[in-house]
Amino acid sequence: MYNKKEYLSTPRCEKMLNGIEDALYVLGGKWKLRIIVGLLDGDKRFNELQRTVNGISAKVLSDELKKLELNGFIRRQVYADTRPVVVEYGLTDYALTLKELLQLLSEWGEMHKERIKEQMRNSY
Amino acid sequence: MYNKKEYLSTPRCEKMLNGIEDALYVLGGKWKLRIIVGLLDGDKRFNELQRTVNGISAKVLSDELKKLELNGFIRRQVYADTRPVVVEYGLTDYALTLKELLQLLSEWGEMHKERIKEQMRNSY
Repeated sequence: MYNKKEYLSTPRCEKMLNGIEDALYVLGGKWKLRIIVGLLDGDKRFNELQRTVNGISAKVLSDELKKLELNGFIRRQVYADTRPVVVEYGLTDYALTLKELLQLLSEWGEMHKERIKEQMRNSY
Repeated sequence: MYNKKEYLSTPRCEKMLNGIEDALYVLGGKWKLRIIVGLLDGDKRFNELQRTVNGISAKVLSDELKKLELNGFIRRQVYADTRPVVVEYGLTDYALTLKELLQLLSEWGEMHKERIKEQMRNSY
């Protein structure tokens, strides 16, 4: 539909598909990116993080945190010298390799929301 | 965990969370981004597209295409003067606003896969 000269070559398109598959394999689903963003302003305890990531259940947050820890995005820090013991979750340096991408995704989301609002205004 | 001075402010973090929520609302799930990338090298018929987006069933592809059309990412073109009628799917200009993001996501995915391979090599 769009201008033919803008088309990517098929090999480049296939390469891009593979990269996206690899990225979504580890970051796909409803919550992982939100959890990572929810920690960008600082380490948090479980309950704090659950409040930040609106709508996630404790069970799902706990499962997702385990997966994110296993994949090297999140570090779980236990402060054993306090009573009760404090557990905090924080981002690893590796998680920060996602920062630019998250910024771009968020800006696109904002732009998209504005577009929807605009369309709704115009339909009255 | 990471250097304290790199933390975002909480309002900025919240804004980013909202943007990401809006983006994932329309693009989340396993297939939508892959379908869009699968059309970056040119318009395709249904069967062609299904072959390109590895692993998607006809039912799911059909559902996803309807949603993507409704949200303005894909245009369905019917060539009625042929026998049998040819239907092709192509990206709209709006879908192309995702190009930079898709490129970045794909590059991150490639980088991540290399990192995993590296870790596996080092664990022998």
